[in-house]
Amino acid sequence: MTIKKGRDYVIGIDFGSDSVRALVVDAADGEPLGTAVSAYRRWAKGMYCDPKANRFRQHPLDYVESLEECVVAALSNAGAGAASRVRGITVDTTGSTPCLADEAGSPLALRPEFSDDPDAMFMLWKDHTSVRQAERINAVARTWGGEDYTKYIGGVYSSEWFWAKALHLVESGAKAARAAATVIEHCDWMPALLTGVTRASDIRRGRCAMGHKAMWHPSWGGYPSAAFFDRLDPRLSELAASLGTETYTAEEAAGGLCPEWAERLGLSTDVVVGVGAFDAHIGSVGGDIAPGTLVKIMGTSTCDIMIGPEPPAGAPERLVAGICGQVDGSVVRGTIGYEAGQSAFGDCFAWLRHILAWPARAGLLGADVDPGAFEERILPALEAEAAAIDPARSGVVALDWLNGRRTPDADQGLTGAIAGLSLGTDAPSLYRALIEAAAFGSRAIVERMRSEGLPVDRVVGIGGVARKSPLVMQITADVLGMDIAVSSSDQSCALGGAMFAACVAGLYPSALDAQASMRAPIERTYSPEPGRRAVYDALYAKYKALGAFAEKEMRK
Amino acid sequence: MTIKKGRDYVIGIDFGSDSVRALVVDAADGEPLGTAVSAYRRWAKGMYCDPKANRFRQHPLDYVESLEECVVAALSNAGAGAASRVRGITVDTTGSTPCLADEAGSPLALRPEFSDDPDAMFMLWKDHTSVRQAERINAVARTWGGEDYTKYIGGVYSSEWFWAKALHLVESGAKAARAAATVIEHCDWMPALLTGVTRASDIRRGRCAMGHKAMWHPSWGGYPSAAFFDRLDPRLSELAASLGTETYTAEEAAGGLCPEWAERLGLSTDVVVGVGAFDAHIGSVGGDIAPGTLVKIMGTSTCDIMIGPEPPAGAPERLVAGICGQVDGSVVRGTIGYEAGQSAFGDCFAWLRHILAWPARAGLLGADVDPGAFEERILPALEAEAAAIDPARSGVVALDWLNGRRTPDADQGLTGAIAGLSLGTDAPSLYRALIEAAAFGSRAIVERMRSEGLPVDRVVGIGGVARKSPLVMQITADVLGMDIAVSSSDQSCALGGAMFAACVAGLYPSALDAQASMRAPIERTYSPEPGRRAVYDALYAKYKALGAFAEKEMRK
Repeated sequence: MTIKKGRDYVIGIDFGSDSVRALVVDAADGEPLGTAVSAYRRWAKGMYCDPKANRFRQHPLDYVESLEECVVAALSNAGAGAASRVRGITVDTTGSTPCLADEAGSPLALRPEFSDDPDAMFMLWKDHTSVRQAERINAVARTWGGEDYTKYIGGVYSSEWFWAKALHLVESGAKAARAAATVIEHCDWMPALLTGVTRASDIRRGRCAMGHKAMWHPSWGGYPSAAFFDRLDPRLSELAASLGTETYTAEEAAGGLCPEWAERLGLSTDVVVGVGAFDAHIGSVGGDIAPGTLVKIMGTSTCDIMIGPEPPAGAPERLVAGICGQVDGSVVRGTIGYEAGQSAFGDCFAWLRHILAWPARAGLLGADVDPGAFEERILPALEAEAAAIDPARSGVVALDWLNGRRTPDADQGLTGAIAGLSLGTDAPSLYRALIEAAAFGSRAIVERMRSEGLPVDRVVGIGGVARKSPLVMQITADVLGMDIAVSSSDQSCALGGAMFAACVAGLYPSALDAQASMRAPIERTYSPEPGRRAVYDALYAKYKALGAFAEKEMRK
Repeated sequence: MTIKKGRDYVIGIDFGSDSVRALVVDAADGEPLGTAVSAYRRWAKGMYCDPKANRFRQHPLDYVESLEECVVAALSNAGAGAASRVRGITVDTTGSTPCLADEAGSPLALRPEFSDDPDAMFMLWKDHTSVRQAERINAVARTWGGEDYTKYIGGVYSSEWFWAKALHLVESGAKAARAAATVIEHCDWMPALLTGVTRASDIRRGRCAMGHKAMWHPSWGGYPSAAFFDRLDPRLSELAASLGTETYTAEEAAGGLCPEWAERLGLSTDVVVGVGAFDAHIGSVGGDIAPGTLVKIMGTSTCDIMIGPEPPAGAPERLVAGICGQVDGSVVRGTIGYEAGQSAFGDCFAWLRHILAWPARAGLLGADVDPGAFEERILPALEAEAAAIDPARSGVVALDWLNGRRTPDADQGLTGAIAGLSLGTDAPSLYRALIEAAAFGSRAIVERMRSEGLPVDRVVGIGGVARKSPLVMQITADVLGMDIAVSSSDQSCALGGAMFAACVAGLYPSALDAQASMRAPIERTYSPEPGRRAVYDALYAKYKALGAFAEKEMRK
């Protein structure tokens, strides 16, 4: 199938934690034509959040306003006539980021009576108010006597996920929880909004979000049973029933652009809107995913995405132990999508930056030094010195579990550590040890995937850290003993969204076909330095020993 | 015995790492009358040192010039007529700080041909050029088939000590090593100089230095045998033979002040000069030592001094396992002096300060911030915030072996660690964990002394940290579960020297009698906070577990 250049455009829309980006590309070859970013206004002011209580809520109007703003601007940047060539739109978002909604499938905070109620807003992925509810879900899953509904999500339900958050609102007696008709994930609401859904039951729930975060699986006919949810709270049962039993992959259409949004965006109602999915999964397609390729989305944390073959017809699905989740079609149709990740990656380095910036925040530098600008200078300076340190000689070994461990074997109660310290250990040595620790965390995931029968032949890095820190990427390549390719696109998620949009618009038969034509070139490949292998093997053994100690002795 | 106030003065002279202090006191009650400090001039310029190679040498002229300067100034400060009332002088020094010397007992660097040769100068205690030689001494001691000469020094000969340093000079083929007639410890040379010794064989070697650092012990008739030294190097045998077989306690006189030095200092030749000893041992007497009292000299590292009863006549001396050394009379006559210590105490905190000051040194603060002044502000600010942290909630546990472990069970190959880290761990939490780690290191020593049959009923803290950091002292008291008394004197070593000087001048029958009259009052006592015991017991268990991990996995 050949698509004529300059004829068909598609839009990928990537909702991040702080802002949303729209990217208009040519569906023929993925050439970027126009892009724009819009920051969430209420969120930027810190509204509805309480960081000390780990409460992070986002108002649906932030999404609505920023969506319109960035799409209109991106189309404008793409030049005259661009809007008339747009054929498809696909949205990806963070997740799990759910919200209580009404019978129309509309977030409750859009109603006047709930417009200032944080419990009627989206609960951002990093909202950790639901720790106790996750513990209850895990306890019930292990003891209720029926199906183990956690078997496809690595055996542990997280406090960051859909049902834990819904249960938290129910249990806390929130007024919104009593008024709600359903719960909706951010990536499912945006397509519902754009396609003009007016009944909650018409929402097309995405396979990716529901499979990875809401325990949806065909083997038990959809979501966990009412009997299971009743054990947690009968109200949760009612909300669960509202979701139906079907889910849809991102290669399927949610519908056509509704007249209201066609007008707001200046587009035709012929534009097809795809089913939504999470940023990491959509981004992995933008980042060259293929069977055997691990795509690492490297930011404050990492999401590590793989795809693998479906089991032969009639054969049971092979479970990969200790990985976040595995869902047939969560990335692309006809393959199992596997999700793993590291709870702290860039955050390990940000932690050291935060330590080193303490004197500035404590006012020890005097009024002439701007703490923010000062803090920005720290990591580049550390990187320059850390690059010169010989890993065979520093002796410092760190553990990257500063925010618990996502995979392998999720355990939020774990903590980080730094060992091998001497009076001569300086800040660049600590920085290098933290980089090595993050790389060792990556290696532990790769080793687990391999030992569970998932071959990892190639690694692609996307995201902020992949493009900003050559030292981090080189050390990760050295530690993995593998080439790591970095895409030339600094917007792999939005590009992936555009690929899916081209697919749902019927321009390509599948997302991987769209990827083949629209992919961004690899900008740089980091190859392992010969001679570093033995050094890092020895340090990795120490990392594992330090981890075993921390697992046994240093739980929160 | 009553001494009339205002009649008899004594001088304690305390040679530190950077400077020497003279203190003139009234022998009747220890009242300080005049004091002065003189910094070593060549040392202050960094001459003869190579910190990267851990080479720290001090020119004997630094000692000579600073000695004269501070004594003259202290006497001047003590007022008219003070000099004529001086009866005794005692010197303490750092150690082991040995130097190659000629037939006259004079350091070789005082000869023109060696005046710029670092190998002909004193090797400061922290000079670590002799690591391999210490390993050889330990290997020979364990395998040569004769007496285990390390049995009274905890089983491990240190690279910081007398014979390791002498052997290093011999093995390296230093010209000075070929020219030398003997080796002299700093604390033995100062009395030899002041008493006008002109033959090496006339030097009165101190029991303290030779017993703790040169393997002198009466049970084998003095120093190790020629057969033992021959195994190391025949040249070392020759140097060892020059030391004779006798040693003298600091309660014995080295001799009378010689005419030359009487004139230089403006004193009478009737002044008695005591045998010298190490600062910690002399300082412990200035710091209220008594049987059952542990005196901790708390600075960058600690020296922990105890005294205990001699064994009954004919009974063998009880060995305290894992302590630096035990020497009959090394502190005061008629008791066994025990020395232990922590390789890094204040240095643990200085390490964190150094980490936090890295951006300043790296030039990230701009020209307006003076790095030195900035660094000085860090610890006081950290202390204020760390004091407010609840130790039951921080979760951070550190290991104080940043400079190896001195006691219990000396092991310079060990390293420090920090565990229990999360993204919320801030600089004050790290600081508090390091303080707690230093306190846990103190507890490990106290527990070892008790388990080896040495009762510890009371703790006295002297030195810079004891007087400067109430938080460190409070946490140490909490962790030990014991009161810690802090002396009002900020010059306990020089005061201890004055007590010994009063003893050798015949004003008191013993140093402890001098102490009873001349002691400085206790300024403050830190008592354990009720309710902290269980918390610190639990954290101490984690400290021990972290230590066991580091011993097994994280050796240098």
